[in-house]
Amino acid sequence: MSSESEIPPSEESGEKISKKAAKKEAAKLDKLRRRQEQDEATRKTASMSLEENEEFSSNYGDVTLNELQSTADPKAGKWREAVEGKDWTDVSDLMEEMVESEVLIRGRVHINRPTSSKLGFLILRESGSTVQCVVRQSEKTKVGANMVKYSEQLSRESFVDVIGVVVLPKEPLTGTTQQVEIQVRKVYCINKALAKLPLSVEDAARSEADIEKSLQTEKPAARVNQDTRLNHRVLDLRTPANQAIFRLQCQVENSFREKLIFKDFVGIHTPKLMAGSSEGGSAVFRLEYKGQPACLAQSPQLHKQMAICGDLRRVFEVGPVFRAEDSFTHRHLCEFVGLDVEMEIRKHYSEIMDLVDELFVFIFTSLNEKCKKELEAVRKQYPFEPLKFLPKTLRLTFEEGVQMLKEAGGEVDPLGDLNTESERKLGQLVLEKYNTEFYILHRYPKAVRPFYTMTCADNPLYSNSFDVFIRGEEIISGAQRVHIPEILEQRAGEFGIDVKTISTYIDSFRYGAPPHGGFGVGLERVVMLFCGLNNIRKTSLFPRDPQRLAP
Amino acid sequence: MSSESEIPPSEESGEKISKKAAKKEAAKLDKLRRRQEQDEATRKTASMSLEENEEFSSNYGDVTLNELQSTADPKAGKWREAVEGKDWTDVSDLMEEMVESEVLIRGRVHINRPTSSKLGFLILRESGSTVQCVVRQSEKTKVGANMVKYSEQLSRESFVDVIGVVVLPKEPLTGTTQQVEIQVRKVYCINKALAKLPLSVEDAARSEADIEKSLQTEKPAARVNQDTRLNHRVLDLRTPANQAIFRLQCQVENSFREKLIFKDFVGIHTPKLMAGSSEGGSAVFRLEYKGQPACLAQSPQLHKQMAICGDLRRVFEVGPVFRAEDSFTHRHLCEFVGLDVEMEIRKHYSEIMDLVDELFVFIFTSLNEKCKKELEAVRKQYPFEPLKFLPKTLRLTFEEGVQMLKEAGGEVDPLGDLNTESERKLGQLVLEKYNTEFYILHRYPKAVRPFYTMTCADNPLYSNSFDVFIRGEEIISGAQRVHIPEILEQRAGEFGIDVKTISTYIDSFRYGAPPHGGFGVGLERVVMLFCGLNNIRKTSLFPRDPQRLAP
Repeated sequence: MSSESEIPPSEESGEKISKKAAKKEAAKLDKLRRRQEQDEATRKTASMSLEENEEFSSNYGDVTLNELQSTADPKAGKWREAVEGKDWTDVSDLMEEMVESEVLIRGRVHINRPTSSKLGFLILRESGSTVQCVVRQSEKTKVGANMVKYSEQLSRESFVDVIGVVVLPKEPLTGTTQQVEIQVRKVYCINKALAKLPLSVEDAARSEADIEKSLQTEKPAARVNQDTRLNHRVLDLRTPANQAIFRLQCQVENSFREKLIFKDFVGIHTPKLMAGSSEGGSAVFRLEYKGQPACLAQSPQLHKQMAICGDLRRVFEVGPVFRAEDSFTHRHLCEFVGLDVEMEIRKHYSEIMDLVDELFVFIFTSLNEKCKKELEAVRKQYPFEPLKFLPKTLRLTFEEGVQMLKEAGGEVDPLGDLNTESERKLGQLVLEKYNTEFYILHRYPKAVRPFYTMTCADNPLYSNSFDVFIRGEEIISGAQRVHIPEILEQRAGEFGIDVKTISTYIDSFRYGAPPHGGFGVGLERVVMLFCGLNNIRKTSLFPRDPQRLAP
Repeated sequence: MSSESEIPPSEESGEKISKKAAKKEAAKLDKLRRRQEQDEATRKTASMSLEENEEFSSNYGDVTLNELQSTADPKAGKWREAVEGKDWTDVSDLMEEMVESEVLIRGRVHINRPTSSKLGFLILRESGSTVQCVVRQSEKTKVGANMVKYSEQLSRESFVDVIGVVVLPKEPLTGTTQQVEIQVRKVYCINKALAKLPLSVEDAARSEADIEKSLQTEKPAARVNQDTRLNHRVLDLRTPANQAIFRLQCQVENSFREKLIFKDFVGIHTPKLMAGSSEGGSAVFRLEYKGQPACLAQSPQLHKQMAICGDLRRVFEVGPVFRAEDSFTHRHLCEFVGLDVEMEIRKHYSEIMDLVDELFVFIFTSLNEKCKKELEAVRKQYPFEPLKFLPKTLRLTFEEGVQMLKEAGGEVDPLGDLNTESERKLGQLVLEKYNTEFYILHRYPKAVRPFYTMTCADNPLYSNSFDVFIRGEEIISGAQRVHIPEILEQRAGEFGIDVKTISTYIDSFRYGAPPHGGFGVGLERVVMLFCGLNNIRKTSLFPRDPQRLAP
């Protein structure tokens, strides 16, 4: 199928967009707009000159703003009259059982294929689902030549209401998700899109394999690069894969909450505006708060622990976290959604790992069971193998991990952190040995963990902490915390943190504090790695990185 | 009951705390700490000098840090050995059916009442539940004099593990929530609280009526003012009312999500870091983002609409919103949790009000059905009448509201906004006439709504918008939005907004946009007004107002 995109095929897939390029794009958009206005004017003149059977003319046309803002008065216009008493059917619900019945559907013009003055094909899209609509001139069905003409000029991405009869196509349809066709009786345009778009959804939805294949043909397909996608995110979001990704993300959060609430956790909301710097770790965004210096929380760490000191016992939070780091990688964002957990410990920090195990096996299983359609939609554009995980999550100690890497010929500092390469390598080794791509690595060296991490009882060089990996990449960090204020103060000092800036945090442990611990997860990373995607920007609705603050 | 609080009874209940007062408080805390350390030293010397039956001495004592950080080795210490193989019973689960069985419970020392060298009473508290524990010297149960002494010196708010036998008390207990007693066999202190606390939980939990009553007696109770509470929020959060408030808040969010997900909404997360100023409305917090000016989103308004343009069809978000306004009222915060909804409209904006109706009746009903215990706990400290609401929510037009106010002798601008006083008055009138404290007022004057609000079809002075009220206070604002980019640009201009700063937002509507609308709710306000509380700081975990950025 040919591409109508204005974006030429390009090898470029870099992450950056220069200001110059942005300006150029804006200028291009302006030009498109002007051209569109001209087209519009031409079209209006043309349609006025056509003869019309008056009875037929009420079966199509642009819906007026007045109709869209009015009370439900059916006399407000011909669209109002046509939809009066009718309910909309979702495109995804159109199926063989409905053949011969009349339906009202709303969707975008995905593809508009005029064939002759008497016949046109519209493919309508609603979220990720598409259906073919046939507009055929016919006295019997009161479809006049002007209605065919009208439907043929509808621009891609415009919103339309179609009333028509469901029929079975003569041959199986390959270009749509739905296997029935609509014989159009009436068509109204709810809202028009610019005739020339900065990117075509059809192009944006194409898999890399299909692009490659097209390059061998006479009609090479456009490759929409990541910055073009993100600059025009509202168009990019309309692809079936993106429609699926954000529904998967919602499902991850739902399962996370469901399991935790079942286990008596309380959902909380901690402040994002803080005096001082939240953990003293990563770089923070600073701002002025009513005359005093403040920063954005780089995690809910301190406050979720304070909620435990406030007797909430087991808490979780889903909320934004802010990192001002200059990380230009496929897996870092300046703002992302943190899934945080903190809980009292009865006996031992393995209770936290028990929860991680149960919780994530539940999340993965829910995704596989409840989101088959969404996973298939992602897979179609971005092929991936289902995540391999065990019913009981594998736990290795850091020392065991280091040993495995050494045996495989790697050089690893037994008291340092693992670098990204070692993490990937260990992921491979674990997959080969244990047949899982999801596992917990615990008892990390104390030196590489935050100041509030509890040391191991049997070896002060190690800590009661863990990381969790999916497909060789870290997604979760957790630990038992120090709940003794004197030790906290000392540790903070060792880490070069000004104890005064976190005094309310440390004081919280002076009024009786239970042993406790918890963990934090990045929502975007879970979805990215579950689906084997190559960039976290694909799983953030409107990503923020060191070079992107818009849209 | 006498008060051990360090805070003298005070008439002061103002919202402010000066820096001087904060310093004074810090100095006092320091002094308390020093005194506590001395007490500790004295105590240790005293206990060493006591004789001890060696067999009995394993039944009590401080749990070592080593035991709390170790692997589950039962030989790590006497506490480890004592709890080995045992499960903890929640204090709230202790009941008559358990009489004569041995239980292990963990809780804070709520009240410690030494009676003699042979008998002491500990009231243990876990979240909002309390139980009386009796420590009685007895050869038979291996409770020695030293154990009685040990338990008598346990400071309030310390965390302890108690192993004991459940018995029925001779007389009904009035000072505890649980109606059984524990005959203590073993007691271990998990973590000690400072002997002198900045406020006592017992004082903080007292109702105003009880305080008033106590003022007639020889032992007047301490009134803990709001700033003392908020300065030491981790202590304040431990009162039964606060334990309940944040569980109610979680239930509101759960019901909100449950209903929306059932109705095919997708939960999303929009960025809080934005270029420009989010709606051009309220004051925003500004910051520098990697060299460019940025601000914190004062609502997810623009991005939730863009998600609709991105075909997510029906979305909701739960997340922080930031307002830099200098509002020193009982109902404003600088950071609060927004519950936001945005949806495609099929025919008419009443579809949004239909959702508000169904959603909030569901939320209120869930609270009443699922949170009886929590509502009772709040009511005990802050008495309130159950919210009156109708199964089908009352809708009045703004004009009808104005008419009601006029008939009651009020002066109201028919094209202006209602002030707080008029809103309260109208709430009263509606309650009298319709017997509901929850209603929708719609068709607001266009002039008092944001630039993106759709005007009414039949009268351009009014708009397709609404506010929703609980007990005479606004909690929800909603409307149909303008989805025509040209009109949006014009309206933004009329409101003095630089269109360039919101160009990505306006451009979103050029690529085909469905008619849509939505609303926003403040989570803290819902809980505050449902429970008839007098200050929003009571329903924010760690509130942020123009004068408070800590803890």
